[in-house]
Formats: sequence, C-alpha cells, structure tokens
Amino acid sequence: MKIKLATSYGFCFGVKRAIKIAENTQNASTIGPLIHNNEEINRLRENFNVKTLHDISEASGVEKAIIRTHGIPKNDLETLVQSNVEVINATCPYVTKPQEICEKMSKEGYEIVIFGDANHPEVKGVESYAIHGAHVIQSVDELADVKFKRSKIAVVSQTTRKVSEFLEITSYLITHYKEVRVFNTICNATFENQDAARELAKEADVVVVIGGKNSSNTKQLHSICKEYCPDSFLVESEKDLDPSWFEGKMLCGVTAGASTPDWIIEKIIGKISEIKV
Amino acid sequence: MKIKLATSYGFCFGVKRAIKIAENTQNASTIGPLIHNNEEINRLRENFNVKTLHDISEASGVEKAIIRTHGIPKNDLETLVQSNVEVINATCPYVTKPQEICEKMSKEGYEIVIFGDANHPEVKGVESYAIHGAHVIQSVDELADVKFKRSKIAVVSQTTRKVSEFLEITSYLITHYKEVRVFNTICNATFENQDAARELAKEADVVVVIGGKNSSNTKQLHSICKEYCPDSFLVESEKDLDPSWFEGKMLCGVTAGASTPDWIIEKIIGKISEIKV
Repeated sequence: MKIKLATSYGFCFGVKRAIKIAENTQNASTIGPLIHNNEEINRLRENFNVKTLHDISEASGVEKAIIRTHGIPKNDLETLVQSNVEVINATCPYVTKPQEICEKMSKEGYEIVIFGDANHPEVKGVESYAIHGAHVIQSVDELADVKFKRSKIAVVSQTTRKVSEFLEITSYLITHYKEVRVFNTICNATFENQDAARELAKEADVVVVIGGKNSSNTKQLHSICKEYCPDSFLVESEKDLDPSWFEGKMLCGVTAGASTPDWIIEKIIGKISEIKV
Repeated sequence: MKIKLATSYGFCFGVKRAIKIAENTQNASTIGPLIHNNEEINRLRENFNVKTLHDISEASGVEKAIIRTHGIPKNDLETLVQSNVEVINATCPYVTKPQEICEKMSKEGYEIVIFGDANHPEVKGVESYAIHGAHVIQSVDELADVKFKRSKIAVVSQTTRKVSEFLEITSYLITHYKEVRVFNTICNATFENQDAARELAKEADVVVVIGGKNSSNTKQLHSICKEYCPDSFLVESEKDLDPSWFEGKMLCGVTAGASTPDWIIEKIIGKISEIKV
C-alpha cells in the first residue's frame, strides 16, 4: 500500500504563531487549550512549563496569561487586562477579524449572523463582540426559524467552516433580505487544506485525517474526505489506528488539521507503514 | 385546449405608476420610451398626446419632460433639470434604489458590480451613478476576467433579472473576495411573476409570454418558461401568434411582462381561443 500526503495539510499560520509565542513565554498559563491538540499541549507543558487553565476563574495569582488561538469572550479579556495578570494575546489574527467585524457591524445597526458552532470557543469569542447579540447557525436549515428585526444583515463565518455551506447561507439571506453584507472570514489555510484533502480523497481508497476530535477544521477535513472516499477516518494519535481499515487498500491518503504538529503526523505515518495489508 | 393565466402577471407597481403620471401629464414628452411596450406607448400618444423623444438632444423647446420608468443617466437628468423644461420623474422607485446605492457605495470606497445588460436603459442609468465606474456583467462567467482593484465589493442587480443567476454571481464574489456587500435590488413583482410563470410552465404544454421584445423582464419570463415547457413563445401582439404552436396541445399557459397592459393580454387570449386545435 502506498501512502500519500495531501499537498497542503497541518499547521496554519495562526497555530504556528501561537506555539512560537508559547515557547517564548515559558512558565505561563493559557486560558483554555492554546490549540485543539492535546499532544502538542502536553509537549508545551513538559518542555516549556506552559499550563492550561480551564477558564479565567483560575487565573488569579497567575503571572502571565496567554490567550488561545481561538480567542476568548470580550468580557473575559477585559477582566484579565484589568487584573494584575500580564496578558499575551495569541488569538489568531484571522479570528480577531470576525470579532472586530461583529463589533463594528453591531454599531452600524446590522443584525449579525455567525455561521459556526455556538459551543466552539472561537464562536463564543466572536459572538461576544456582537453588542446586541448574534444569530449563530450551523446550517441553512436553521435560518427559516430566525426572526430578523432588521433588513440589514451582516454575516461572518467561523474561520474553519466549509465554503459551500457558507454560500448556502449567504444565498438564502440574499434571496430574502434587502442588504446582506458578507464577510468571508473562512481562512485561506482552511481553503487550501480543504482543496488538497478533496483532491487526495478522490484518488485514495482509504484516508487518515489526523487532528484533535474537538478541532473544527479537522472535522471539516474529515467530512470532505468522506464525501469522496467513504473509508476516511479521524485519528488523534497512532493508538486510534485500526489495521482492518487498510486491508486490501492500494493508496492511503494522509492529511492533518491546522493544529496538528508535524511530529505527530510523522509518528502516525510511521505506524501506518508498519501495518501489514 | 384550455387556456390558463399565471397567478401573477403583467403590470407592476412602477409601470402602473408611470402610466398614471403620463395620463395626468397630457401634452408631455418622455425621454426614451416610457415603458417597454410599443402598443401602450401608441395608446398614450393617441389618447393623451404623450410623445416619445429619442434622447435629451430632442428635448429643447419641450415644455414638460417625463422620465421613463427605467430612469436616465445622471448627467442627462441634471442637464434637463438645469434647462427650462419642467421635469416629471416617473422613474420606478425600485430603479431609483440601485442608483442611490451605486452613488453611496462609490463614495464609501466600494468597487461596484452591476448584474445586468450594459445596453439596457435601466442599467445605463444605474451605472451612471457609480462615481468611479462599475463592472456590468451578464453572467458569472464574465467575472473571471474582471480585475478588481479593491477587496470591498458592492453588488446590485438590474431589477428584472433571475435570482438564481444573481446568486451565482454573489457566490463567486464571496468565494474570492473578503467583503461583498450584496443589495438584492431584483423587484418583488419580478419575483412573483417569475414564480408564477415557473408553476404555469410546469403544467402547461404550450406557453405564450406576452410583452415587448426589448423588455428585460419579459425575456426573463420567456427564459424561465422555456426551461419547464420547451414550447414557450414570446409575442408582442396577436399578429405574432402561429396556429401551429397549438396543434395537439391540451393546456395553453399565458403570462405577461411587467409592461404589458391588460387590454393587450385580453386581445391575445381572445385570438388564441379562436384558433382551431
């Protein structure tokens, strides 16, 4: 069985930047997991003494607090800044963007729609900047039940969503409302990894998607791969691999989410290549 | 053969309004045809002495000038207003809207896209309000060749276009650019007539679409009907009817563009019902 990597995969700009910040800020604590990858977070704790706090309630007494790539709610950030903690902001600049848009559009009288998962920390953060609240929706079907008070709507997306689904939402809104101001805040790395995953899944007969199970962009990659190659599997570490997946297969595609470090990818590829098929 | 009218057809708000204005402003001249229906324009000339001028170069010496439903270019309107001519503006309010949007968005630094026919008087008028010019496109395919200088794009539509094609254009722009401000300026009457035409064409085995051959909304209705019923024909007057269209047919659907008066529709239905099938 041959193993082929996607032409674009793994660490994005925002994750690389956050890890560098964490490595340069030893003995700090992050508010929530810095990125959605437990193995990398363990490495940062062991090698750089960067701890992970559950939320800001645990931050009192902490000297240096690092804001995670996904950002945190506006109130939490303000509370931290006003306390004695030194705040180091590792929020991905592509996440800061929709936060700023939500705040500005709220002030200009737009009703806000966020395409994303209301329980995901990035979306919680972005939503907190919508002064009069926002409608967070996961799919176009949910829009029919939304009661809009205004005819001016601004739309942003969680950075890691599928473009095709974002367009379903914008098309629905454009059909039904007079002004729809669309900010495509899906990040380019997401685009590129998704496009490459699609091409890989078309030719492979089994695909392994490596990334955190709580990582939105990893889940999107997995969903895209399954469309083109039903035998696509999401794994967090080599322990999740099941040899039966590879029986009789000719080409195994490998891709990884934006928060998956190369060292994990290498370890897993090594394990796959040892499997007898 | 049964004859069935669409549930929504013919005169829209803007056309009704313009005809009332013309009837109440006898002995006036319109700059270009008031609406895209020659028969109705002849009626206004014969019964109300409302003449049709080719353009503003013929307006000197005229006492009262009526601005057509489609509007006229900004410069022409300013020239008229500054002359001694009394100007009566019958521009459809739904056309004034995209004119205002183009002007405002140009001033706010947006690059303007107009979905429509660059040669249609409505589009010429709307385009003239885009201070730094606009990209007028007829289909999404033309967008690939457009070189945008800015990443902030505002989009409007000719009032009479198909929504599905407008969405192809907005989806392309949203995929490629960071901010796309979409103003759905397709008018509701257009929506309603198009929806009704679609339903009619699904059940009829021949459809007659009545309207001016230079009328954009009539051409869109014809295009929609042909999708669902290949034997769909556009006629301006009863002279265009061809008895062979109706041979062996069971149900003839009839619809009409927004500038088609009821008296023409009645005349044509009368003629169709006389045809031996």
